[in-house]
Amino acid sequence: MTFPWLKGHGTLNDFVLLPDHDGQRHGELSAELVAALCDRRAGIGADGVIRVIRSAALGMPSDGEWFMDYRNADGSVSEMCGNGIRVLARHLIDEELVPEAPFVIGTRDGDKHVTPLPDGEISVDMGRGEVRGFSKVRAGERVWEAHDVRTGNPHAVVFVDDLAQAGPLLEAPEHDPETYPDGVNVEFVRRVGPAHVAMRVHERGSGETLSCGTGACAVGLTAARLDGVERPATYRVDVPGGILHVTWRDDDGLVLTGPAVIVARGEMEWMA
Amino acid sequence: MTFPWLKGHGTLNDFVLLPDHDGQRHGELSAELVAALCDRRAGIGADGVIRVIRSAALGMPSDGEWFMDYRNADGSVSEMCGNGIRVLARHLIDEELVPEAPFVIGTRDGDKHVTPLPDGEISVDMGRGEVRGFSKVRAGERVWEAHDVRTGNPHAVVFVDDLAQAGPLLEAPEHDPETYPDGVNVEFVRRVGPAHVAMRVHERGSGETLSCGTGACAVGLTAARLDGVERPATYRVDVPGGILHVTWRDDDGLVLTGPAVIVARGEMEWMA
Repeated sequence: MTFPWLKGHGTLNDFVLLPDHDGQRHGELSAELVAALCDRRAGIGADGVIRVIRSAALGMPSDGEWFMDYRNADGSVSEMCGNGIRVLARHLIDEELVPEAPFVIGTRDGDKHVTPLPDGEISVDMGRGEVRGFSKVRAGERVWEAHDVRTGNPHAVVFVDDLAQAGPLLEAPEHDPETYPDGVNVEFVRRVGPAHVAMRVHERGSGETLSCGTGACAVGLTAARLDGVERPATYRVDVPGGILHVTWRDDDGLVLTGPAVIVARGEMEWMA
Repeated sequence: MTFPWLKGHGTLNDFVLLPDHDGQRHGELSAELVAALCDRRAGIGADGVIRVIRSAALGMPSDGEWFMDYRNADGSVSEMCGNGIRVLARHLIDEELVPEAPFVIGTRDGDKHVTPLPDGEISVDMGRGEVRGFSKVRAGERVWEAHDVRTGNPHAVVFVDDLAQAGPLLEAPEHDPETYPDGVNVEFVRRVGPAHVAMRVHERGSGETLSCGTGACAVGLTAARLDGVERPATYRVDVPGGILHVTWRDDDGLVLTGPAVIVARGEMEWMA
């Protein structure tokens, strides 16, 4: 079977895009094909697959013409991915499938407002976050005090003096299952300067990754709250894969901004 | 620029193939393009790139019509790759560019005889190996006695009781620079049964990899020599990425046999 594909990434969080505008090409996109494509040695390799499909074709209610049908690397469905939706937006803009202006993309987490910026970066409205209080993470030889933050996904945000220390800590952090019954993403964060932090992240089910959009939002929100800054405020969040910015708006909403690039596109015959 | 490409692997040693039969398409294939394609997040991802080109087009003396123009993931030229040449052979057979019979592929390490087998696996004549004697490897808390073996590349072959132990050992093994002035690949090997071993490998410049063709040959030869078996002898060598077989022939030559598969092919526009 031959099909169009693209490869892109946002701060090295990488995706295979499968254009299937009217849902005719891939039918019920199989978990097997997704997992095979995402395999980094026996396939193409990616953190996830994004089917590019019209909301109507998928039968999903949305004010946006286009829908992010997102799959994790194991083939399972995921509701939302802050870096993925920016890569999808980059593709829709490149192919002139949307206006060069703010637009809406449908996701299983609801409609998301996307804004292309003059410098080529792309912003996405990630909705409101919530700093619930404190939690604990066991990592390495000790228990760390964490901030319990929700930004679509549950997060445990731990401030440290040295991110190099965080490497071993990120191998298998343990969390409180009562606070996080569905698991948690753990961010270790270092303050770099005013409104500027750097982070490393352990994503549930994936281990340490090079970037996490909801994690950057959780970290930016927590740092801004601790600093007692006025809204709106924008924080720079350095992730291993690049630089993101998180804006905490007047209305409490969080906006994630960063690069999103398509590196290759073509037609593929899948033979495995 | 749009160009044809394929992705394939042999025991999860994976490659991007770039058909360029007459050398017109890629000219002097740039190290930048190779490195960009091989990047596992910002590119497609592979252990190396194989340009599929006629020996004459590259101006290389060979009895084979086709030449393996092999590049490492960093873009540098490499002479030979035992898994890569089997993947290239798979492609040449699939596309009916060679007869369904033994044939020759040119490499910078000389002509290599390739044999497609009825079960779909592919054998390649890797030339003679040499067990030079003993060497030492410092790994973890101790110094290990190793066999100094040459099979195109230099190898230090260490027999252990438990390959799980080898994990930390493979992080940064140190070798004797007088024995191995150009570095060495280190194999930790466990005996599984008669004519059957399992290995893990640390490749110089790459770290632990899932498979190494010359390493499997070094390990198979060393085990056969230690067992005092008669030639010809065939040893099964389990690597993390699959199963290889190494035959020690009457004439002292080593033959590497294993799977080689193409998983995808198409045309690609490179945009980065």
